[in-house]
Amino acid sequence: MVRKILVLGAGKSTSFLLDYFLKKSISEQLLLTIGDINPKAIPQAIAAHKNCRVIPVDVNDPPSRKAAVSNCDIVVSMLPARMHLSVAQDCIQYQKHLVTASYISKEIRELENDVRKHGLVFLNEVGLDPGIDHMSAMEIIDRIRGKGGKMLLFESFTGGLVALESDTNLWNYKFTWNPRNVVIAGQGGAAKFIQEGTYKYIPYHKLFRRTEFLDIEGYGRFEAYANRDSLWYREAYGLEDVLTLYRGTMRRVGFSRAWNIFVQLGMTDDSYHIENSEGMSFREFVNLFLPYSPTDSVELKLRHYLKIDQDDIMWEKLEELDIFNPNKKIPLANATPAKALQHILENSWTLGEDEKDMIVMYHKFGYELNGKKRQLDANMVVLGEDRTFTAMAKTVGLPVAIATLNILNKKITTPGVQIPISKEVYQPILSELQSQGITFKEYQVPYLGYNPDTVAG
Amino acid sequence: MVRKILVLGAGKSTSFLLDYFLKKSISEQLLLTIGDINPKAIPQAIAAHKNCRVIPVDVNDPPSRKAAVSNCDIVVSMLPARMHLSVAQDCIQYQKHLVTASYISKEIRELENDVRKHGLVFLNEVGLDPGIDHMSAMEIIDRIRGKGGKMLLFESFTGGLVALESDTNLWNYKFTWNPRNVVIAGQGGAAKFIQEGTYKYIPYHKLFRRTEFLDIEGYGRFEAYANRDSLWYREAYGLEDVLTLYRGTMRRVGFSRAWNIFVQLGMTDDSYHIENSEGMSFREFVNLFLPYSPTDSVELKLRHYLKIDQDDIMWEKLEELDIFNPNKKIPLANATPAKALQHILENSWTLGEDEKDMIVMYHKFGYELNGKKRQLDANMVVLGEDRTFTAMAKTVGLPVAIATLNILNKKITTPGVQIPISKEVYQPILSELQSQGITFKEYQVPYLGYNPDTVAG
Repeated sequence: MVRKILVLGAGKSTSFLLDYFLKKSISEQLLLTIGDINPKAIPQAIAAHKNCRVIPVDVNDPPSRKAAVSNCDIVVSMLPARMHLSVAQDCIQYQKHLVTASYISKEIRELENDVRKHGLVFLNEVGLDPGIDHMSAMEIIDRIRGKGGKMLLFESFTGGLVALESDTNLWNYKFTWNPRNVVIAGQGGAAKFIQEGTYKYIPYHKLFRRTEFLDIEGYGRFEAYANRDSLWYREAYGLEDVLTLYRGTMRRVGFSRAWNIFVQLGMTDDSYHIENSEGMSFREFVNLFLPYSPTDSVELKLRHYLKIDQDDIMWEKLEELDIFNPNKKIPLANATPAKALQHILENSWTLGEDEKDMIVMYHKFGYELNGKKRQLDANMVVLGEDRTFTAMAKTVGLPVAIATLNILNKKITTPGVQIPISKEVYQPILSELQSQGITFKEYQVPYLGYNPDTVAG
Repeated sequence: MVRKILVLGAGKSTSFLLDYFLKKSISEQLLLTIGDINPKAIPQAIAAHKNCRVIPVDVNDPPSRKAAVSNCDIVVSMLPARMHLSVAQDCIQYQKHLVTASYISKEIRELENDVRKHGLVFLNEVGLDPGIDHMSAMEIIDRIRGKGGKMLLFESFTGGLVALESDTNLWNYKFTWNPRNVVIAGQGGAAKFIQEGTYKYIPYHKLFRRTEFLDIEGYGRFEAYANRDSLWYREAYGLEDVLTLYRGTMRRVGFSRAWNIFVQLGMTDDSYHIENSEGMSFREFVNLFLPYSPTDSVELKLRHYLKIDQDDIMWEKLEELDIFNPNKKIPLANATPAKALQHILENSWTLGEDEKDMIVMYHKFGYELNGKKRQLDANMVVLGEDRTFTAMAKTVGLPVAIATLNILNKKITTPGVQIPISKEVYQPILSELQSQGITFKEYQVPYLGYNPDTVAG
């Protein structure tokens, strides 16, 4: 019997996802329907597949949305997170399972009773981050506990970066995902975490100065800055007693220190509109955030304001972005500082035709076993194949696709609004990801934690 | 014929206001009604006056509020700004004039048509800042224009500080007004202003490092940091063509640089709750915002994090507040960082029994007259008499009181929702304030502006 999968939203994260479904369409008897507001943008190679149909769906138009949802067996929503709710409500009305790669919103969470009543599986946060991070961490935490270990420390870091051969600028960074999310990353409240039992709070304007280093064999050194709320994971992972809990975002060393210049200047602010932004030069944009002077240059004012030494590499990073150029213009009307900055960065940080991205993930697990403190580090590196089959699309799309098939095949059956932290869910997904080359390397290392007795002299 | 004045809310800013009405009550035939949620808190000397009545009014209880409003000739609302709207709506219903010292909210602004239709005067922003600043500035701007001058620059600064003889701590600061407003000052968006025709934006975390100095004869040097939105005043004052427009808050020199420590640490954040705040020591509170270390002291971590030198006076300011004390506790449950910081500051910065406050205001007017650029500076200093008859209560309460009487006496008649910027309104008020000792000194100074040709070598 043919099973009908509806994928809503076929953006750039869906190349591997769609490919996976179509490759499995014969052996698994799948009929794939892609519902998108702009069906013509779907590549011909996919749209023309005999087991694929493409239909126009405007998620804000209930009739077209409901028609699509009612006529399938399971819904995969790759739409922006804010659009999931109406889809989820339709899934309850027509009794369909739902899979997403997005964080569970309060509104989706509130559907729990209805979802359970109908025996449906609403599996969320099953992409990369959130997604692979949950699954790989819980797999190791469950293994440690299975041996009788007691968790003391959990730290987890993810980054979307560029492959070594495409790492060609001073920032060691290019946009491989939504640039807007990169520009406003960390905003909206202090970062919260717990270290050796002590709560710690970092305000946004200090976030990029409180990094820590991470080394990955064969890939060198990275740094990480804190994500906004690490404390939420205590309950989700059952880590209420853990002394250290920290989640962060990975960049190449030196990125954060230079990015901090934009934060300090106020260029990442997305809360107000600049007067006369349209046609403003990059140089004029920089000058908005510097004290007025009739005589001094924008360059000197910036160096003095942020105390940037003559020979500081940060300066070359700024010059590489051409931000002092009086001729390059911002074309956006009513831009916020963040939107104007994004324009400037996109001018430099776009992945080239032949360039490849890279996903890195790094977990640290501190635990006590048989009276001894131990630490296990695990890391994953995934490389993109090209600009369509990116590491980002692979690590977001494959777990979603595998989860979908596992629900259809009744390997995942527990009903409810959930994230992939139970063995029933993560084990088959991780095992298939492994066969697709998405694997973690594990290293038993000395437990450092942050404990006085164990700190290296 | 007796005229009935209703004053809603008799907080600590109302000593001069109530006193003024009662002193004038015979000659002007006034009957004063004070409506307050806690009538017993009204001092006996006021409540027992033969022309005063005190009634319980809960502004959130429509019957008690409407009864009070309907039974008077004019309403003075000294309530917190968020409570004005229902009072204003009652004033329309019962056709009463209204006077407040608060900024006009969007909702109050929208009552304009109803207010005009009934020929009512709703006079807002007629306290100190906003209030005396509007009136004194417009008086001088109108005078400059009357002579044919063209405005080039307007800067205006106000501060609530302590009198010289009560200026006894290293911060040169004590709370003389709502401490909460001091702690969260400058938050909620970047400061915006215009300098020599160039827009400038300062993010909150840089606000206290972009100060300018101001000198007042006989009172020494002050500094000022930018208020949030200076641009609004362009239309209000008719200064659309002005090249420089800046409003700021005055402190004694060095305050802002030290206050910036709290901002950098994230201690002024009011957007989240600290875990386990109740019973936390001052020292533990500081440590929330510092990196974890098993060995280093809170003091060294703070010095290193914010690069505070051994001999920096800022350090002594911190020690004066006793913020490293492990025994002093924060008694507040679920405190935000801002609330905890406020508690620590109130522990040090409370005005003593015999201490006096001081209000300072400083305006700069740059203009061109007969082909020459000129500058007029004007400043005002008002000293408090004691902890009840403070300079703050005087400068907020007297203009409100005088405005009220002028409306009753039909010296102010133009209907509408307004602020005191027309000559009809400001002239009689300023003239009576002068007789009460609230005066400006004016100084013709060389026009510096920020112009290359005139900058001193």
